[in-house]
Amino acid sequence: MTGIRQLAEHLQISIGTVSRALNGKADVNPETRRRVLEAAAALGYVPNQSGRSLRKGTTGVIGFMMQTGPEITGQGDTFFMSVFDGVQSVLARHSLDLVALLCSSEEDPDAYLQRTVARGFADAIILSATRRRDERFALLHRHKIPFISLGRSLTDVGQPWIDLDFEGMAQTAIERLISAGHKEIGVIWPMGDLNLGYLFVDRCRAVLEQHGLSLDESHIFRARPSEAGGYTVAEEIASRPKRPTAVVLVNETLVTGLYKGLEEKGVKPGRDIAIIGRYSPQSQFLSPALTCFNLSLRDLGIALAETLLSTMPSYTDHYAEAAHRQVWPMTLVEGSSG
Amino acid sequence: MTGIRQLAEHLQISIGTVSRALNGKADVNPETRRRVLEAAAALGYVPNQSGRSLRKGTTGVIGFMMQTGPEITGQGDTFFMSVFDGVQSVLARHSLDLVALLCSSEEDPDAYLQRTVARGFADAIILSATRRRDERFALLHRHKIPFISLGRSLTDVGQPWIDLDFEGMAQTAIERLISAGHKEIGVIWPMGDLNLGYLFVDRCRAVLEQHGLSLDESHIFRARPSEAGGYTVAEEIASRPKRPTAVVLVNETLVTGLYKGLEEKGVKPGRDIAIIGRYSPQSQFLSPALTCFNLSLRDLGIALAETLLSTMPSYTDHYAEAAHRQVWPMTLVEGSSG
Repeated sequence: MTGIRQLAEHLQISIGTVSRALNGKADVNPETRRRVLEAAAALGYVPNQSGRSLRKGTTGVIGFMMQTGPEITGQGDTFFMSVFDGVQSVLARHSLDLVALLCSSEEDPDAYLQRTVARGFADAIILSATRRRDERFALLHRHKIPFISLGRSLTDVGQPWIDLDFEGMAQTAIERLISAGHKEIGVIWPMGDLNLGYLFVDRCRAVLEQHGLSLDESHIFRARPSEAGGYTVAEEIASRPKRPTAVVLVNETLVTGLYKGLEEKGVKPGRDIAIIGRYSPQSQFLSPALTCFNLSLRDLGIALAETLLSTMPSYTDHYAEAAHRQVWPMTLVEGSSG
Repeated sequence: MTGIRQLAEHLQISIGTVSRALNGKADVNPETRRRVLEAAAALGYVPNQSGRSLRKGTTGVIGFMMQTGPEITGQGDTFFMSVFDGVQSVLARHSLDLVALLCSSEEDPDAYLQRTVARGFADAIILSATRRRDERFALLHRHKIPFISLGRSLTDVGQPWIDLDFEGMAQTAIERLISAGHKEIGVIWPMGDLNLGYLFVDRCRAVLEQHGLSLDESHIFRARPSEAGGYTVAEEIASRPKRPTAVVLVNETLVTGLYKGLEEKGVKPGRDIAIIGRYSPQSQFLSPALTCFNLSLRDLGIALAETLLSTMPSYTDHYAEAAHRQVWPMTLVEGSSG
């Protein structure tokens, strides 16, 4: 097997330079670095990563914890692929790799993370699917593993977070519907204990009350975050004796099913019921096009990575400007649905 | 920090039993195993995984390599989440974890995999996005890392693979359209060098020829595998002086855009043009519902994991029955689109 010494001999440069190039140090000129990496690939250089990990205490890997499983399949998957893209564009600057830590929905996320920490292969972690109260924060804090959460929580260990502006979204959506004359406004809230649902529904309720209206409890619909969930909730909405004239939804993964379900019951989106939701790859291709909130998921990924790196001693100088906590704005995309 | 000795003392069982329980050995009774894992979590037991990896030569982690990036965002993401679910259900039996190895589309997959191998944190790897010729096979073979590819390739190092039955799908779809009287049949082929596109188009061409028809070169449409790609290709189809009366598509991620684009040009899917495609979370909620090919992605994930484990000495006895190579059937779901 080709080691670092053979590589240095082959290239006729010092072992120190080869080592610094392989380890992504900034003081190696780009051309040398390129030559070293090409030779490493060509000659099949394989460092003993486990040994390297023990010596340096780093792995070169950042983990992104996300949930998988039949119930949540289709939830945010397109979302995550785009976020990953942004995260990777930052990590590539430092020769860090991103791996997705896949926690099955059948597993306790806290126990899963405990095991992941034990395996010790990530230098830092990005958490998603942040819950109302989230034990994972304390676990990582206790083990001194740098992390950032995508999402706020009632739990707070002082870690950095970035969260979408679900409250601003609720405010804008509800005020838009009130301006259009709606008084009976419903909310679709994804099942589960994610914190974002609470933020969203609480703000919807508050804005309605500011305008002398109220959020009827029978107008809060809990739905599985999937197209089938959207279809089911459409049947529920259509069957209510007092149907809301408008609904807002915080989740992007159920709107095609919602449209279809409503149409089958003779309730035409945009005409018989106003709908405001979240942007998805499908949303602009629905008829009528969905009025929805969008954001640059790639930029969100970039910010997650930069903020995380700003808390890690080796990278902190590069990202001194990174905000510790951010509420990430979303933009209204005008459609014809509401 | 709580070590294995403290854990054994706390539980009043032998260090050997605790170790075997923690390492997922089969000879520990389930109740003991449960007690050990609970205590490990409660007391914050953290083995030195890097040390463990050096001693045992295993990491307890299986990697699933997939591509990410702006161009392919939305491609197969729902697909992968469901496959992961099946893979994880098998790995959980052996206390193995799955991580997704995210290769940015801006990176060379071969170089990426080389680096991943160097990091050495996965005991075995599942490859996806299999190309027409795929250098990754030889790399893993050379390093004696067990792997399975989701997809065949012209490259063959004797590794196990599972591939969807793209040829059977092409055959059934084309024959169905011919039976319905179509003579001008087009094919939508996702851009890139994935092997599945070749298998699909070649078989479409062969079946048409068997029936005395031919695949007109101007009826082969290359599309980005995204809703926007579907929308663009719809404009292309609609603008052709001699438009195909039917199209088949191998990819599931562009059909909503395709429908919308065709409708805007006054070409109604199912009425003015027949469409046969792949099942997606949205496909049954389109109007008209898409005639499409479906499979159990969870079962596919289970088969991938079981076949992979059957090639690993520690697990081979459990999976003696696993087929080394499999063409995975898909089922036609009758819609109204074609």
